[in-house]
Amino acid sequence: MGHRIDLNCDMGESFGAYVIGRDDAVVRYVTSASVACGFHAGDPVVMRSTVRLAKKHGVSVGAHPGYPDLMGFGRRNMCLAPHEVRDYLTYQIGALRAFCDSEQIQLQHVKPHGALYNMAVDDPDLTNAVIESLKDFRPEPIVLVLAKSIMQEICEKAGVRVAREAFADRAYSLEGRLVPRNVPGAVIKDPALIQARVIRMVKKQETLSTQGETVSLGRVDSICVHGDNPEAVNIALSIRSILSKEGVEVVPLKEFV
Amino acid sequence: MGHRIDLNCDMGESFGAYVIGRDDAVVRYVTSASVACGFHAGDPVVMRSTVRLAKKHGVSVGAHPGYPDLMGFGRRNMCLAPHEVRDYLTYQIGALRAFCDSEQIQLQHVKPHGALYNMAVDDPDLTNAVIESLKDFRPEPIVLVLAKSIMQEICEKAGVRVAREAFADRAYSLEGRLVPRNVPGAVIKDPALIQARVIRMVKKQETLSTQGETVSLGRVDSICVHGDNPEAVNIALSIRSILSKEGVEVVPLKEFV
Amino acid sequence: MGHRIDLNCDMGESFGAYVIGRDDAVVRYVTSASVACGFHAGDPVVMRSTVRLAKKHGVSVGAHPGYPDLMGFGRRNMCLAPHEVRDYLTYQIGALRAFCDSEQIQLQHVKPHGALYNMAVDDPDLTNAVIESLKDFRPEPIVLVLAKSIMQEICEKAGVRVAREAFADRAYSLEGRLVPRNVPGAVIKDPALIQARVIRMVKKQETLSTQGETVSLGRVDSICVHGDNPEAVNIALSIRSILSKEGVEVVPLKEFV
Amino acid sequence: MGHRIDLNCDMGESFGAYVIGRDDAVVRYVTSASVACGFHAGDPVVMRSTVRLAKKHGVSVGAHPGYPDLMGFGRRNMCLAPHEVRDYLTYQIGALRAFCDSEQIQLQHVKPHGALYNMAVDDPDLTNAVIESLKDFRPEPIVLVLAKSIMQEICEKAGVRVAREAFADRAYSLEGRLVPRNVPGAVIKDPALIQARVIRMVKKQETLSTQGETVSLGRVDSICVHGDNPEAVNIALSIRSILSKEGVEVVPLKEFV
Repeated sequence: MGHRIDLNCDMGESFGAYVIGRDDAVVRYVTSASVACGFHAGDPVVMRSTVRLAKKHGVSVGAHPGYPDLMGFGRRNMCLAPHEVRDYLTYQIGALRAFCDSEQIQLQHVKPHGALYNMAVDDPDLTNAVIESLKDFRPEPIVLVLAKSIMQEICEKAGVRVAREAFADRAYSLEGRLVPRNVPGAVIKDPALIQARVIRMVKKQETLSTQGETVSLGRVDSICVHGDNPEAVNIALSIRSILSKEGVEVVPLKEFV
Repeated sequence: MGHRIDLNCDMGESFGAYVIGRDDAVVRYVTSASVACGFHAGDPVVMRSTVRLAKKHGVSVGAHPGYPDLMGFGRRNMCLAPHEVRDYLTYQIGALRAFCDSEQIQLQHVKPHGALYNMAVDDPDLTNAVIESLKDFRPEPIVLVLAKSIMQEICEKAGVRVAREAFADRAYSLEGRLVPRNVPGAVIKDPALIQARVIRMVKKQETLSTQGETVSLGRVDSICVHGDNPEAVNIALSIRSILSKEGVEVVPLKEFV
Repeated sequence: MGHRIDLNCDMGESFGAYVIGRDDAVVRYVTSASVACGFHAGDPVVMRSTVRLAKKHGVSVGAHPGYPDLMGFGRRNMCLAPHEVRDYLTYQIGALRAFCDSEQIQLQHVKPHGALYNMAVDDPDLTNAVIESLKDFRPEPIVLVLAKSIMQEICEKAGVRVAREAFADRAYSLEGRLVPRNVPGAVIKDPALIQARVIRMVKKQETLSTQGETVSLGRVDSICVHGDNPEAVNIALSIRSILSKEGVEVVPLKEFV
Repeated sequence: MGHRIDLNCDMGESFGAYVIGRDDAVVRYVTSASVACGFHAGDPVVMRSTVRLAKKHGVSVGAHPGYPDLMGFGRRNMCLAPHEVRDYLTYQIGALRAFCDSEQIQLQHVKPHGALYNMAVDDPDLTNAVIESLKDFRPEPIVLVLAKSIMQEICEKAGVRVAREAFADRAYSLEGRLVPRNVPGAVIKDPALIQARVIRMVKKQETLSTQGETVSLGRVDSICVHGDNPEAVNIALSIRSILSKEGVEVVPLKEFV
């Protein structure tokens, strides 16, 4: 069997009159949409229309819950108690699931957003809060975790369905962590470079750190493309085409996790 | 068969460090809890603990969604498009249902809160937005509507499950509408008077307007007790005891609607 | 003395990661900036950078306070008590004035935003709330009011400094009111048409209603250009150039009100 | 000259329908009120009424700005950029100052709230952000800092007016820092013990850590009493009376800093 990979993108990050992302264009190239749930981005009207958009294009839908920090787009670390995180997740995932139910599609996955994702990567308490929240839902959604993270390990041990994720457009540290966004070079914008990195991630299960050293990622199930930067559409298109050219099958997570 | 009635109370209206209501005391006397969903009151942590509290006391749980106006406690009219109202409701109800699922109880009902409730009472567009949102859920929750309102009529015609509601502690206009809270005398506080009004509502299907005229209410399925005023516990207790004394069976909506 | 007119534009409507408007371009063509204050749009970081931008270009700064409705961009009617409106205004204006002080410019004016502006136009209670709030500041800022509105009349009688405003890109009703945004044709986008309307407003003190009838506006002190639509920059430029061509001097309000 | 001390209390922490604190009672015993500014607590209506209450009782008013985290009451650490903190402070202080201006009193001081206070205590970048914000105001308000903190040092070097603060009802670590609220025993509730601690703080310039060791505080200018716990009134009264009995003069900061 050949390589199979999911392409996921943050979507539904607009809020009221505020628009972020080119969801209508990016949706054509990805297989899974991680939809913001109103805490760090998104609102109920945006959530419904994003779920409809994804459905129309055969894209699977997941929840993308974040910290209650709209002003910081969920990208600023907050120190919450694990039970608070669990309840904030259950709230947001539940809200999104209602739109999935209404539009008659299934909630495929959950991917914590921004600072919550990055803090959970190495934090067993936060990871367990995420797991507890996943268990609040039937069927239990797949959880997207950074490949080779402590979070991946804990989630696998807990027996939840895990999809291992790598980031096409983000620089990695030696330790296999994402370089924080405020560090220059953290977000990669060159489509050719991104293509090369994606193929390496998928085929060699590794990437290069900012220092140029090889970082082992292990098997990757999903590649994350960002939708909130201007080049997002081109990047998504170029990733999709290189994967196709290299014979990698691009399918939603639910078909192979 | 004798009279059967549900007693419902707003619950879960606390928010973060802010406490409103004596939920732990009032929960002993009511049969249904209308739980705030985070827009006008309530937060995810409060929602979970309120659902648990209700479950522990055998009280049925419903969603109490409101306008996105925490500063005004959802009591100030807002002019939203009907599709916005539908989506705001689906979001909030979905969030609460997730906590119900997690705690393994069923979402019994939906009761719009405050200004949304009062605006929907005579507004077919808002009522239809509520109905659309109810249909987003399976099983479809019961909707609480003001007895003898246009909302009741429209909901019945639409074939949704309706519970007709009357308010124990609120003054009525000649037209059978609630007197706005900012009018003196709008909130009734005398337990003996409240007892008399409740019995009249249940047995005679009527109440007295502020002008002293008889207002026909028709069959009432649920009496609303408020939980956010200091006398709430006494009032709930006194209503429960007079109903018992008068041979009215007090049971949750789901048992007879 | 020839005609003198102020050109004002909403600015600082971005919020966190969300961008609205082309402030950096529009600022070159206007004389006054009405800066959002965090309730319907804007945040503290955006407010400071907008004040700096305006100062750099010699553009006068005013506060543009709105309803606490970020999700609705302050464009949805809310029924607040007049004392609430006054305090919400004082809060927002005070916050903006602090950035003006910090950047060593003076707060020139106050212009209520969106639904608050439209509701105040014909509502003496809301207008008086605005006036009360203006009096909370020394020196008292100029207030922008719709030309020929009840608000204008009341403000003039109250002795506050008034600037009469007309809208370059908005359709007018027979009664001289703005056609609501959700009505087709409410927002005019043709630069040539806008130019013609502006000249008529300034020179003939009138405009045409959607029905084609002449609407008298009286003397106009400021023309509003919107910054949140894609054509804003072109429109601002074309208005500025036609005014210049027609010999109308474009200067900030503070120089002639 | 004998001892002089200020007693400060958090006030104006109510929000909309939500009430926290017994401001009307505590105000009788303190000399300075630190008024919440709408980010972690407080709203514009509450701010005005709190400023009026303080003025009526001759109590000096300061701003008590916090993180934008109403759900967490500003008590949860957030990682903001220093320029964000500066602007969030300027916004909040500016808003409160407008109410002070309106009620014709002067803004006496600024005291960062909760997590912001605790994070700034040992963080030069955050402290400098506070200082930058103070400089946005004329006259520059006094800043309340934890006695013997790095923040005190930096503020003194920067030449801003500093008031050194100690907490009557909070446990101290060996290092002279407040024990976090989620640690048992962090909040002291015994009025007699609080009295003894206050006298020791004022007269001996020291306190006892949770381990029983002496912690040197240096000269203390203000004692903080909390207003959000049920015993607040009694504690404030008992502190006031013991200080009076011990011949310590209780006066607002502005009279001696």
